[in-house]
Amino acid sequence: MSKNQRGSENENLQRSTVAVIGLGQMGTRLAQAFLSAGHVTTVWNRSGAKADALAAQGAVRAATPEAAVIGSPLIVVSLPDYRTVQDLLQPLAGSLDGRTLVNLASGTPEEAARMADWAAGHGADYLDGAAMSGTRLVGRPEALFVFSGSQEAFSTHRSVLTSLGNSVHLGSDPALASVYDTALLGLAWGALAGFYHAVALVGASGVDPADFAAVATGHMPFVTSLMADHARQIEGGRFPDDDGTVEVHAAAIEHLVRTSRTQGIGTDVPELIGNLLDRATASGHGSSGIASVIETIKKGPRNV
Amino acid sequence: MSKNQRGSENENLQRSTVAVIGLGQMGTRLAQAFLSAGHVTTVWNRSGAKADALAAQGAVRAATPEAAVIGSPLIVVSLPDYRTVQDLLQPLAGSLDGRTLVNLASGTPEEAARMADWAAGHGADYLDGAAMSGTRLVGRPEALFVFSGSQEAFSTHRSVLTSLGNSVHLGSDPALASVYDTALLGLAWGALAGFYHAVALVGASGVDPADFAAVATGHMPFVTSLMADHARQIEGGRFPDDDGTVEVHAAAIEHLVRTSRTQGIGTDVPELIGNLLDRATASGHGSSGIASVIETIKKGPRNV
Repeated sequence: MSKNQRGSENENLQRSTVAVIGLGQMGTRLAQAFLSAGHVTTVWNRSGAKADALAAQGAVRAATPEAAVIGSPLIVVSLPDYRTVQDLLQPLAGSLDGRTLVNLASGTPEEAARMADWAAGHGADYLDGAAMSGTRLVGRPEALFVFSGSQEAFSTHRSVLTSLGNSVHLGSDPALASVYDTALLGLAWGALAGFYHAVALVGASGVDPADFAAVATGHMPFVTSLMADHARQIEGGRFPDDDGTVEVHAAAIEHLVRTSRTQGIGTDVPELIGNLLDRATASGHGSSGIASVIETIKKGPRNV
Repeated sequence: MSKNQRGSENENLQRSTVAVIGLGQMGTRLAQAFLSAGHVTTVWNRSGAKADALAAQGAVRAATPEAAVIGSPLIVVSLPDYRTVQDLLQPLAGSLDGRTLVNLASGTPEEAARMADWAAGHGADYLDGAAMSGTRLVGRPEALFVFSGSQEAFSTHRSVLTSLGNSVHLGSDPALASVYDTALLGLAWGALAGFYHAVALVGASGVDPADFAAVATGHMPFVTSLMADHARQIEGGRFPDDDGTVEVHAAAIEHLVRTSRTQGIGTDVPELIGNLLDRATASGHGSSGIASVIETIKKGPRNV
C-alpha cells in the first residue's frame, strides 16, 4: 500500500474531530467538554464501562485504541504517566502519521522531549499538555490548560482545545508544559500553605474559616497584582521598595511567628518565610524590595 | 464649663469631616484619598512640610494635634506603633469625647483591646484598622482596609472610610483587625514565596519571569477559588478529595523538590510543603483531601 493510498484510506476513516484515549476522571471530563462544544468525539478506554457511559452522551465508541487513532486527526491521551502512554501507543505507531498527538500525562521535561521525538519519528505532531485546574472546572473558561510543542498543531486545533477551558500555548519546546506544570503546582501550594496557616491563626481567635476566606479571597487579586509587578522587577534585576523593604517585612513576619506561637499553632510556615527574609538581609538585601528574596530562594540555604 | 457648653463649642469647631494625624507615606495617601472623594480634611504632622504639601492640595492644616481632634468627628491616626499613638493622644484625651478614633498602627490584639478601652474611657468610639494593600492603591476599590471595633462608628463613617478603598468591618472585637492583618500577611507571603520559587524554577529552563507571570496570574483566580472551597471543608471538618488527596499531592511535590534540585535552585520552599504533606499522611490523612493539611499546620512539627 502506497503512502497516498494509506492517506486516503485514513481520511475516509477520520470521522471524528477528536479522540480521547483514557477515560479516568480527567479523560471523561475532557470528552464531555468536547461533546458539549459540539465536536464529534471518539472515546476509548481499557475497561469498557466508561466508554459506554460517554457513548450514551453522544460519543463515538472505538473498539480499539487503533480505531480511535485512525478515526481522528487529533488524539488526546489522558493516562497516568509517560510509560503507560508509550506502552499503549507503541503498537499503533504506524497509524500516527499526519495526526496530532496531545499527551496530558504528568512527567519530566526529559520525558516530554523524548515523546515529542518519538512522535515526530512516526510523522505525528506533538503537544505536551497539563491540566492545571483539576477536573471539576474542565470545559469552563477558568480551567487552565497549558500546552507546548508544535505551534502549527496548536493553531490548527486551537478551537477544539479551547473547548477544554483557557488553553494556552507556551512555546515550541515540548518540555515547557511540564516545567510550568511543576512550577504552578509550587505556586498554588505556597498560596494554600499560607492560607491554611492564616485560617489556623484566626481560628485561634475564634474567627470562622468562611468569614476569613471571604476577606482573604477579596485580598488575593492584590497579592496577584504584586506577582506581575515583581516579575518585572526580577526581569530587570532591580528591587525598589514600593511594597516595603526586606527588613520591614522580616519584622512583620517575626511578629507573625510570635503571634502563631502565642496562639499555640505551628510556626513552620512563617518561620520558613522569616528565614528567607533573614537570609536576604544577610546577603545585603535588607533595604531592597521584597522581590529580591528570589535571589535567596535560587541559592538555597547551603549556598548563602 | 458644662458638658453641654463644651459640646456646642466643639460643634462649632468641627469644620472638617475627617482629620488625618501622621503624614508619612500612608497618612499622606489617606489624606489625598479623602480629599479626592470631596471630604473636608484636616491634617497634622509633627514636621510641617508634609502638611503644607497637603494644604496646597486643599487640606485644612491644623496648628496642633488638638486642633485637628477638636475640628473633626472622625480622627484617623497613621503612626508607626501604638506607643507613638498613645504618647500623642494622651495629652488630648479630654478632647476626644464624642469623636471616633481610627487607629491604623500595626500591633498586637492586646494593644488594640487596651486602646479601645482607653478611648472608651474618654468618651470616644474606637476602630482599629489595618491597610492591607500598601500605599500605592489607597483610594482605589481594590485597596483592602479592615476595621474592627464599634459597629455604630463604622456605620456612621462608612461612606468616608470607603473613600480609602474596600473598607471592611470585621466585627465589634477591636482585636480582629490586628488578627486579620497578621494572618493576611502570612497568606500573602505564602503566595509570594511560592511565586518566587516558581519564577526561579522556570527561569532555570530559560523562561522569562514576565511570561511566566502572565500565565501564573491567570491561574491565581482558580487557586483563590480553592481557598473558599477549603474554608468550607475546614469549617465542616470533612476533607473530600475533589482536588486530589494528600498522598497524590505529596508525590507531585516530591517531584517538584527533585526538579528544583536538578535545576540547581534551592529546595526549602517545596521541602516545607512536602514535609507538611508527609506529616499529614503520617497522621492518617493520606487519602483525605489536601485541606486536611491544616490539622498538621495547627499542631506544628513538635506535636505530631
